[in-house]
Order: sequence, then C-alpha cells, then structure tokens
Amino acid sequence: MTMVTEIESKVMAAKKASIILSSIRTGEKDKALEAIARALDNNRSSILQANEKDLENAEQLKREGKLSQALVDRLKVNDKKIDSMISGIRDVMTLDDPSGKTISSIELSEGLNLCKVTCPIGLIGVVFESRPDVVPQIMSLCLKSGNAVIFKGGSEALYSNKALFDVMIEALRNTGTIPYDAFHLMETREEVMDILRMDQYIDLLIPRGSNDFVRFIQDNTRIPVLGHADGICHVYVDEAADLDKAYNVCFDSKVQYPAVCNAMETMLVDHTVASRFLPEMAQRYMEAGVELRCDDESFSILENIKGLKLKRASEDDWKSEYNDLILSVKLTNSMAEAIDHINSYGSHHTDAIVTEDEQKKAEFISLVDSSSTIINASTRFADGYRYGKGAEVGISTNKIHARGPVGMEGLVIYKYVLIGNGDTVADFENTGKKKYTHRKLDISLENMLNLKTDKKVM
Amino acid sequence: MTMVTEIESKVMAAKKASIILSSIRTGEKDKALEAIARALDNNRSSILQANEKDLENAEQLKREGKLSQALVDRLKVNDKKIDSMISGIRDVMTLDDPSGKTISSIELSEGLNLCKVTCPIGLIGVVFESRPDVVPQIMSLCLKSGNAVIFKGGSEALYSNKALFDVMIEALRNTGTIPYDAFHLMETREEVMDILRMDQYIDLLIPRGSNDFVRFIQDNTRIPVLGHADGICHVYVDEAADLDKAYNVCFDSKVQYPAVCNAMETMLVDHTVASRFLPEMAQRYMEAGVELRCDDESFSILENIKGLKLKRASEDDWKSEYNDLILSVKLTNSMAEAIDHINSYGSHHTDAIVTEDEQKKAEFISLVDSSSTIINASTRFADGYRYGKGAEVGISTNKIHARGPVGMEGLVIYKYVLIGNGDTVADFENTGKKKYTHRKLDISLENMLNLKTDKKVM
Repeated sequence: MTMVTEIESKVMAAKKASIILSSIRTGEKDKALEAIARALDNNRSSILQANEKDLENAEQLKREGKLSQALVDRLKVNDKKIDSMISGIRDVMTLDDPSGKTISSIELSEGLNLCKVTCPIGLIGVVFESRPDVVPQIMSLCLKSGNAVIFKGGSEALYSNKALFDVMIEALRNTGTIPYDAFHLMETREEVMDILRMDQYIDLLIPRGSNDFVRFIQDNTRIPVLGHADGICHVYVDEAADLDKAYNVCFDSKVQYPAVCNAMETMLVDHTVASRFLPEMAQRYMEAGVELRCDDESFSILENIKGLKLKRASEDDWKSEYNDLILSVKLTNSMAEAIDHINSYGSHHTDAIVTEDEQKKAEFISLVDSSSTIINASTRFADGYRYGKGAEVGISTNKIHARGPVGMEGLVIYKYVLIGNGDTVADFENTGKKKYTHRKLDISLENMLNLKTDKKVM
Repeated sequence: MTMVTEIESKVMAAKKASIILSSIRTGEKDKALEAIARALDNNRSSILQANEKDLENAEQLKREGKLSQALVDRLKVNDKKIDSMISGIRDVMTLDDPSGKTISSIELSEGLNLCKVTCPIGLIGVVFESRPDVVPQIMSLCLKSGNAVIFKGGSEALYSNKALFDVMIEALRNTGTIPYDAFHLMETREEVMDILRMDQYIDLLIPRGSNDFVRFIQDNTRIPVLGHADGICHVYVDEAADLDKAYNVCFDSKVQYPAVCNAMETMLVDHTVASRFLPEMAQRYMEAGVELRCDDESFSILENIKGLKLKRASEDDWKSEYNDLILSVKLTNSMAEAIDHINSYGSHHTDAIVTEDEQKKAEFISLVDSSSTIINASTRFADGYRYGKGAEVGISTNKIHARGPVGMEGLVIYKYVLIGNGDTVADFENTGKKKYTHRKLDISLENMLNLKTDKKVM
C-alpha cells in the first residue's frame, strides 16, 4: 500500500462526493447555480484584485520574454468578463438537466423490466492554461449535469483561479444541499502529471489551451480526453459550385476569425473552375491581408496578379494549422481527390463543400470522415453556441462518446436498471419455466418504480 | 518518415476501405451477411480440418503443461458451433442497421439546417484469445454497422481463425459490392503490440479473453478499449428483503453459471436479517457445492452448521473474482455501508439489491455506480441477449461512450451535417444581417437533402 498524497486524498474525496452529487435534484442544482452567479457579482472587487496580481506577474514574465502578449490578454479579467461569466452561469440554469432521463425501457418478461437511464459520468478533470473564465464555465456545466470536478489551472492565473473558485465554493457551502467536496482546485505546478496518472478515479479529462498543450495531455494519460488538438479545416470548391456562394463561404471560413480551430486552413479547388474562381477570390483575400500558399497549378493561375501575398506551398503546408491570415491552396482533378486529401491531411474537425450538385452533396457528407461536414456554408459555424447547444463543453474530434461541438450531453453516460420480483436466469435457461418477451415499453424509471415520494431517482 | 511495415500497410488499407464501407447500403450489407453464412455452411469440412490441426497442437501443449484444458475446450469447433456461428450471422441480418440514422435536426436560421446523424466509428481492432467463433461474430456485427476490422487472434487458434476468415473474405469478394479490404486477419505473434500502438488508425479496440488478457490490452494502448477486465458483482440483502426472493436471487447469481463476469462474488447481508437468512441460504449453497468465505460476524452465525465449506474471509476476498463456486459473505450495518462497499471494492459491472422498500430501491439505483443496477433479480441477467439486444459486442464498464451490455449501438458515433446556401458567420456576428432561430426540426437527413436518387446518404 503506497502513501496517499494530499492530491490523491482530494481526488478521492471528490470521487466520493460525486456519488452524492449525482443524486441531487435539478431544482437544487439550479438554486446553487443562481447562488454562484450572485456570489460572483457580489465579490467583483476581490476577483479583480486577485487578477491584478496575476497580471503584474505576467507583465514581468512578458518583459523577461517568458510569456506572450496573447497569453497576457487571455489572463485579463475585467467587469465585462465577470458579466459574461455570470450570464454564462444563468444560461446553464435555463438548459435541460441531461441526467436522470429514461432513454428507453423494455419488458424482458412479465414483471421483469429494464430501463436505460442517463447519469453523470462521475469525476471530470479540467486542465487548463491562462483563461480564468474556464473555472465558472466548466463548474456550472458540471454542477448542472451532476459531475464532480478537479480543476488544475496554470501558475500564471494562480490568484485569479483561486479567487473565482473560493467565491463559488463559499456560495455552494451556503446552499446546505450541494456536496461542495465534489469540487477541488489544485494549486501547485507539479500536480498536472499527478492528475494525468489518476485514471483510477478520474473518468474524463477536459483540456483547455493551445494545440501543444492538448496534445501533451493526450500523450500523457490513460484517462479519456474530450477535445481536439488540431483544427485543419478545408473548403472544397466543386466544379458545380455557385461561385458567389464560394466567394462568401471561403472568405468567411478564413477571414471572419482566423485564430480559431474551425477556420479554414486549406482551400481545395476543382481544376475546371480554378481559372474562373481563383483570381476574384485571391483579390478578396488580398484586401483582407491573407497570404496564399499555392501548389504549382494554382500558383501559375495567380502569379501575375499584382500585390498578392503569394508563396509556393510545400508538403508541410497541407499539415499546418496557421491560425492566422495564411491559406494553402490546392487544385484537384475530382471530388474524390479532394475527399482523399481531406481524410489524409485534415484533422477530422470540420470540412465544407461548395456545390449545387445534389449527388455530390450526399457523397461528400458520406465520405468525409469529420465531426462536422458542411454544404454551402462557412466552417466557422461549427461551434456549440451556433449549433444551438446553449453552452459548449468543447469540440471533440474523438470517434467515440461525443464528437463535434459538445454540450452537456457529453457529460453524461447511462446505466441500466433492472427491476424484478425475485427473477432468476435459471427459470428461463435451465428449467424453461419462463420466456423472454422483449416488449418495448414507453415508461420512465420513476413510473416503473411507482415512486410516491418526490425524491429524485437519478 | 519511417518505413511502412506490412502490418501498417494492412491497417492503412483497412482504414481507407472503412470510408467506402461506411457508405454501403443496408440491403447490400445484409446480402453480404447471407453470403457469409452460406459460405460457412458450404465449407464446414475445411474449417473442421483446420481446427483439427489447432487441436492437435493444443493437446501437445497441454501435455507439456503450457495450455489448460479450459483453453483447449474453448478452441474446439464442431458442427454445432458452426451452426451457431451461422445462426448468429442471420440474427445480425434481422437487426436494425444502427448507422445512417438522423438523431436530431435543427434550423440554425432560415435555410441553414443542421442534422446529427449516426455513422460507423471507423476501424475496429479485435484482439482475442482462443475462441475462433469471435471471428464470424464480430465480423458480422462490424459489417452490419459499417465498420472495418483488424483481427488478431492467438497462435493456438491460428489455423481455425484463418480458415474461418478466408471463407468469409472469399464470400465478401464474390458479392462485388463490399470493400473486402476493410477486413484483415493478422497472423504472426509479434503483431499484438504493433496493433496496440496504431492509435493513429484504429479507433476502438475490442479485446476478448481472460481478465488478465483484457487488463494487458488496457494497460498497453492509447486506443479506447471497449470492455471490462473484472466482474466483481454483489447482491445486497436488505433488512426489508423478501427472503424467498433473496434465496432465489442469491442462489441464481452465484450458481447458475459461476464462471462468468456477471456472477455474484460477494454477498452483503444486513445484520438485522442475517441470522434468519444466512443458515437456510448456506444450506442451499452447501447442496450446490459452494464454498463460503465469511467475515467474523457471518462466520459466527454459520460455524455450527455441519458440512458447510466455510472459511474466514480476508481483505483480498472483497477484491477477488473467483469465477468459481466460491462466495465471500459480509454483514453490513446499513444500506449505506453496503453501497460504500460496492462502490469501493466492486468493478462497477452489475450489482443487485433485494428489498421491498420503495425508497431504498430508488436510493440503491441512484447511489450504486455500476453499469447495471438490479432490484430483486439475479445479476446473471446483465447480458446483451437477455437485455434484448439480439447480439452483444461485449460488456463495458467504461464511463464514456457505451456502458453495460453493448449491442451494435456501441459501434457507431455521429457526425454533424450542416446544409446552407452560401451562409457566413459574418452575416450573423459582424453585420447582424441574420439571426439564429435554433428551431427544432423533425426531418431526416435524406429529406433535408431532398434526395431523388436511391443512393444511401450515410
């Protein structure tokens, strides 16, 4: 038996509390969310003061060249950001509780009934860089869905994270109903690796940060990771494209906000429309300051346009997420070639086609192996809020559990509940006294249990 | 760039073929299943001959003490086993195709519609010991759901696996519609570790074999593993139990088939009913040859019964999966103590309560963190066939994706399909020209695409 570390004891406490938390009723959870929102509103000055401390340290580190301006920006908390934390929490209050829902029910045999019911996953590990607003956002999503959380933020946001967390925990403590031991904030630097090793207790990891950060997490843990490292998204302009739609979709996918995972990084253009489409498109990109990295064929179409930021693409460009006003461009001989390029070089995140051909729409959707496939619209739409989820846990490129923009539905799993009357398998399979009916029911677990109390079941 | 090995090239070929396979229509897949079933029927002698070779080698290894009789038994293929392979495949034909189903659809804005549609996971790795019947079973489930498969069996079943696989592949080849490159059987011994390393291509692993075998797989791969290692299941006999039900449930859970994961390993008994319940229960177990390993309290109740196989339990017994006619027994002071024991020592597989108390039923269901929680019925019911799934991929104790007995629904994920008309995010979020409506639709992807052709969409 090894010694239990302080971290481990916190994680074990959270795991234990997660069981209680999973049985708290929706109404109590919503009251707790309102209490958290109010507490943030009432404690603005202490939060801003703590953030001031982090910002001073960050400025110092920036002067020493150890921190980028972008990271300092993401660290900053002001009244407007607190407003949006608060409204984010109140948004979560309005969303459906995803746990405790009967997915299906079936009669196995007379008086022997099976229910499949959603329940929280259990204990979520949240590992994040910089942005302190991750704390209230994930806290509210996990609380509403009934999951416990271990937070581990970066040292650069030490004071801000602690101030936010302490205010929220104090509010939970005052509710008297929420097992606040379900939520812990880890503080020292060494604990990231410790958390990644706790696959015995932590059921799911949500990393928030740069691509390299997420990849580091994915590469160093056996805990399932919900998220994505790369976002190498494509738009394919088909020979049957409406070129006006293509200009708009390609422009928006690259320019509307280039620093994010769902921005386009490579534009694929069918060779039959390239000479009509590319010059005008390049003109629009030029006005927005976009640099183009072209394969030989597209380069030769564009090389005489004055003022273009034009380079030749190398093999590396097809694998690059620029997150910037840079776009690689490649001509293809067919949709099949474009799809093959997308499946080979892409990150299975979000890929779009511009075409008017109904058959090609269906084929593209079917054959592109990405979490979002898009017809005649910008890749930038692939996002939890735009997809109508109300709140986003993250975007996943996983092939199991949850894929694409993930809302609270990604924070629940299900369990089977079987209710009998002393039934034995021997009666069915040894003596043959009973027979399986496997009759579909349309009845919730509550009704099946015939509960007269108002106690929450799941 | 490292050299591509032969194994890697097979895996890459399967991954590529998985894309084509994902778009094959249900009717074609069912035809292929029928072709496979017939081919097995028509090639019985070559399969039995190959199995004979494996059995000869196995008998030799058994004589050298390198293989157990149980393993030799599991290796054996006869006409009856081929019959059940064939009927298993025909059962899968009758099941719903789980892929290509529209889960939900929503209008983001006028003319901009989003569909969430199920699709195959992609490439499944199946790593198994002994039982050659795994090959047709998993092959049929994966083919029906549209997934490619890499099989890796043990060397003891080399000839049997190859004979079964070759017969099925030849049948697929003759269909002319199924991309048979989606299915590969690995042959040499070294390849297990190679497969476990291929997380870039393989989306999900299904291990079939002993607990140690499954644990080895889980501990040596970054690929998600669908399955479970331990099956430490409990029955808790509550103070409000109907004892007649308790006798039946506890007897069946242990005795009906003790060698499997959903058999009970520990019986927890409330101290208030112990002296009434245990002597009669022990008598029944004695007649079935069950050895009891008791904590001090239950030991003192039973020690004077003549002929009982009775031992004192140690801490290790609470963590043991006997898979045999052995049962550990523990008294508890409350249901809370029983639940705590189950959540701490159990494997989160299947746990049951015997009680007539409605409130306790609800609490047990809510607080026991297991894939199946059972009220007044045997733990042995936790199984894909008994749960009405028609066919079982495996039983999962994972907390994400699929939990409990898993049917073909565990072999699909979903993708989002967004269909627009040249829509840009800038129109919503920069110029404010458009507004999100987020109106729920009740329309399938096929209808949304307005497809006039009979081509399968997903």
